[in-house]
Amino acid sequence: MFREHLQKMVENVEGGQSALLMGFDGIAVESFSREDAPDPDIQTVGMEFSFIFGQIKKAAEILEIGGIVEVTIQAEHLVIIIRALTDEYFAAITLSEHGNYGKARFLLRVTAPRLLKDL
Amino acid sequence: MFREHLQKMVENVEGGQSALLMGFDGIAVESFSREDAPDPDIQTVGMEFSFIFGQIKKAAEILEIGGIVEVTIQAEHLVIIIRALTDEYFAAITLSEHGNYGKARFLLRVTAPRLLKDL
Repeated sequence: MFREHLQKMVENVEGGQSALLMGFDGIAVESFSREDAPDPDIQTVGMEFSFIFGQIKKAAEILEIGGIVEVTIQAEHLVIIIRALTDEYFAAITLSEHGNYGKARFLLRVTAPRLLKDL
Repeated sequence: MFREHLQKMVENVEGGQSALLMGFDGIAVESFSREDAPDPDIQTVGMEFSFIFGQIKKAAEILEIGGIVEVTIQAEHLVIIIRALTDEYFAAITLSEHGNYGKARFLLRVTAPRLLKDL
């Protein structure tokens, strides 16, 4: 169930590499990577950024700007889009630097409620 | 010089609130806010996220995904787009949650080299 949704996201976007459903505690529920996806693996990416997402949440509380909906990190060799699903879980997708960012963001947004349904 | 560029960005995007040029040490070089921009003020936002940007940089080093180009944080009541200019400085723009995210991102991208020229 989760894996299918993650796989669809990755396969339907140009440059899509991996997708992940993870707890903010850094423990993955499910993930999918294209066979030819380069390092780093998506679980390692998820663990690093689950910690950072926690820091961003704290900053948002201090600033009183509401809950965090989405965080995007564009590095030179990887784009990471993270979307909060609940207080405990998030979904993420990674793309190559030339991937279709807008489409990935859209797919993550429409996939979120499908993942949420089964959480 | 800096202020003009920041002001143009904010005024040319629907929902634009504030813009900022800041060091990663959290010290602002220049900022501009619309008169009716709500709290939190842009310098406080910048300080919080300059720290987080540093954490993201460290994660990117561990993951070997290259330097950080852009970070976007979408909270319930504020959207923040941060773009690295050099190893020392970044520019940021904030929008209301219904602001034109794509245009803000575009304007920040084209304004970056103009700010960089005078750094």
